[in-house]
Amino acid sequence: MVMVDVSGKPKVFREATAIGNIKLKPQTVSLIKTGKIAKGDPLYTAKIAGILAAKKTSALIPLCHPLPLTSVKVEVKILGKSIVKVTSTVRTEAQTGVEMEALVATTVSLLTIWDMVKQYEKDTEGQYPSTVIENIRVAKKVKEDVSGERKRKKA
Amino acid sequence: MVMVDVSGKPKVFREATAIGNIKLKPQTVSLIKTGKIAKGDPLYTAKIAGILAAKKTSALIPLCHPLPLTSVKVEVKILGKSIVKVTSTVRTEAQTGVEMEALVATTVSLLTIWDMVKQYEKDTEGQYPSTVIENIRVAKKVKEDVSGERKRKKA
Amino acid sequence: MVMVDVSGKPKVFREATAIGNIKLKPQTVSLIKTGKIAKGDPLYTAKIAGILAAKKTSALIPLCHPLPLTSVKVEVKILGKSIVKVTSTVRTEAQTGVEMEALVATTVSLLTIWDMVKQYEKDTEGQYPSTVIENIRVAKKVKEDVSGERKRKKA
Amino acid sequence: MVMVDVSGKPKVFREATAIGNIKLKPQTVSLIKTGKIAKGDPLYTAKIAGILAAKKTSALIPLCHPLPLTSVKVEVKILGKSIVKVTSTVRTEAQTGVEMEALVATTVSLLTIWDMVKQYEKDTEGQYPSTVIENIRVAKKVKEDVSGERKRKKA
Amino acid sequence: MVMVDVSGKPKVFREATAIGNIKLKPQTVSLIKTGKIAKGDPLYTAKIAGILAAKKTSALIPLCHPLPLTSVKVEVKILGKSIVKVTSTVRTEAQTGVEMEALVATTVSLLTIWDMVKQYEKDTEGQYPSTVIENIRVAKKVKEDVSGERKRKKA
Amino acid sequence: MVMVDVSGKPKVFREATAIGNIKLKPQTVSLIKTGKIAKGDPLYTAKIAGILAAKKTSALIPLCHPLPLTSVKVEVKILGKSIVKVTSTVRTEAQTGVEMEALVATTVSLLTIWDMVKQYEKDTEGQYPSTVIENIRVAKKVKEDVSGERKRKKA
Repeated sequence: MVMVDVSGKPKVFREATAIGNIKLKPQTVSLIKTGKIAKGDPLYTAKIAGILAAKKTSALIPLCHPLPLTSVKVEVKILGKSIVKVTSTVRTEAQTGVEMEALVATTVSLLTIWDMVKQYEKDTEGQYPSTVIENIRVAKKVKEDVSGERKRKKA
Repeated sequence: MVMVDVSGKPKVFREATAIGNIKLKPQTVSLIKTGKIAKGDPLYTAKIAGILAAKKTSALIPLCHPLPLTSVKVEVKILGKSIVKVTSTVRTEAQTGVEMEALVATTVSLLTIWDMVKQYEKDTEGQYPSTVIENIRVAKKVKEDVSGERKRKKA
Repeated sequence: MVMVDVSGKPKVFREATAIGNIKLKPQTVSLIKTGKIAKGDPLYTAKIAGILAAKKTSALIPLCHPLPLTSVKVEVKILGKSIVKVTSTVRTEAQTGVEMEALVATTVSLLTIWDMVKQYEKDTEGQYPSTVIENIRVAKKVKEDVSGERKRKKA
Repeated sequence: MVMVDVSGKPKVFREATAIGNIKLKPQTVSLIKTGKIAKGDPLYTAKIAGILAAKKTSALIPLCHPLPLTSVKVEVKILGKSIVKVTSTVRTEAQTGVEMEALVATTVSLLTIWDMVKQYEKDTEGQYPSTVIENIRVAKKVKEDVSGERKRKKA
Repeated sequence: MVMVDVSGKPKVFREATAIGNIKLKPQTVSLIKTGKIAKGDPLYTAKIAGILAAKKTSALIPLCHPLPLTSVKVEVKILGKSIVKVTSTVRTEAQTGVEMEALVATTVSLLTIWDMVKQYEKDTEGQYPSTVIENIRVAKKVKEDVSGERKRKKA
Repeated sequence: MVMVDVSGKPKVFREATAIGNIKLKPQTVSLIKTGKIAKGDPLYTAKIAGILAAKKTSALIPLCHPLPLTSVKVEVKILGKSIVKVTSTVRTEAQTGVEMEALVATTVSLLTIWDMVKQYEKDTEGQYPSTVIENIRVAKKVKEDVSGERKRKKA
């Protein structure tokens, strides 16, 4: 078992963007929009949790390398009546990519939203019949080549 | 801002089961089935990562209480040609539920699978056109009532 | 060297409140009040950082016991033109008190405020001539006696 | 919300020194001086806790970058009859400064001293009427310019 | 894969003691005895590192339960001319034993001693021809039975 | 107290290999070989735990520098009837060596094996009369000199 050897690889600019959605009840989304969630602001809390989580990636995912992240950005947006979308972009200058860091940021942000609105999503029996996290993807990866040119490609 | 006060609430048996899927290329799933993933066994690694992550829940999700988990079980199963399904069940005897712990275990397991098979999922431009994590849900919560009776309900 | 033995001591309700101030430039406090800090909302970020830090106390302070915190509350308030005050209250049902947890929450909250407003507090030479954290105290401890009566005392 | 982008900035030598005091009872300071604190040596324990904490800065302060610290030094000194002063100096070669790391080291050192002498500082009602942490400041920051010259400035 | 289910088991007093040795050069042991190790006091540092590590056991050993440790004691003793012996004793009131916690404390203490005296143990080629950690054992486990009686057994 | 200053030292290729053994009952080794350990696969679990632990070295050993590991490899092999041997190799490009990282990986792997087979090693009184971890050594260190030549030396 080996955390892949990247010794000797050049350290180049890397960027990855990961997205994901959480589907909530329309009433819960209304409460978020009007700032009425009892536990605090789910969107702001989710952003901070996502940034902190990105920095813990190599402790969570066994074969991830510890990387010196140079930027982590987490955006949280309400889409329509029942979707909250998280978009995380992570940058580094390293020998390996940061898609796992972006995925961890997005995922922990989404889970934090769930935690913040738990009481509004549960039914009378304490179950979550409608809450679901979906469509977690890597939207884009960027890697600078040896000449220093950035190659951006869309998924 | 407050991590909800559960002082004085009785410590009762709690259980939560969270599920989720990762969609991979059929070729990747074949490589998993035949034990040919270069980085190691994605399913076994995912189980361990999920169990370890469940124990980190209160460090990842800002308002989660630190709970003395009494059991964490992570199952990983291949469904059909392109789906790997993770099912995590967490138990405790505490004043608050463990659905976030089960969700964290499932999510980090799914992300670990992604990391283990990255090289087979990327296209020639380094993007992930088809890989997606979906349908992360709480399948079931159980809570013992004050009389000691366990109430199990299906989602 | 020993983390003091509390085996056999009864688990009783415990609460501790710790306070502290950070002195900022009046201009910085104005920017906070008007929501113009570029890095985000310093007060909200500080609250979350404080709550997360309280849960890490036994990993930061060598001889602190790991305790099952039942509540953490962090309040951040602007006092006059140049002071931001943090008040953290932590609760548990345990064999030992939670003043260190409350102090860690307050201190990390104050440091987070500093980090969020760094660019406005630095002078042209990159120094912090006026920024200072002061008056970190335990404002109150509460401990239930064996009969179950809560003894509240003010400092 | 974004952990500020430092991609592309040059990695230069950085140093920061943070100071802070804890005010204890004269009797407690005497016990420290004569090596009679029951839980162990508060000053030595504080130094180790401070060094370990510096390395955890980016996990404690949400928007701090993970930095490859090249040196952490924590000094603890008794001043007069009732003050213990902590001075922490942190170095790195990075794209951003280390004042938060120095502040975290100093603060956790001071909190560790508090924890080590708790029993001598509490009054008969379990309160801390006189213990206080004060004057936490960044004493000095140093940053090498692009030419490689170190610019040292005093606060 | 499952972190063994201990739900419903009674919480009883548990204690475990783990021992281990590190063999150093006689010259290194002399330097320790006379307080001349440049990096600091290896024995005191080792004790603190061991106590902190005991509290991280469930994050290091995948299937260990998070346990509310009620006491951790680490003793470090020089035996003869070239051995340093570490003895760690951990206590809890829980549903499962603490031998892994005691072993982790002992092992991390021994590794810390190694780190503190590295420069004296290396040969001119940077190798460690004689340094070795050996004889790591669980010396004793104690478990209270349901009636409350403590059963102590010798290794 | 100081985490040794390595500022200004060149970042060169570093490698370290650490070994160690755990002695188990022959019956336990047979159960491992035939895949009959109830808690899971001890060898695979040990490898993952070792890799994760290597990345935590600077949080466990107080004066270790945080290093950007470029490779971690953990091998676990059964030797004869009662020995399991762990060999961990860690690489980086840094200003200081990685022997502590290799030692931490090996040690936590060995402890994980112990944890996975606990139930087969305990006697009827819950003690471990024969289980022992031994012979933890640094087998080899490699350091590139300034000209870029790798110097490999065997212990």
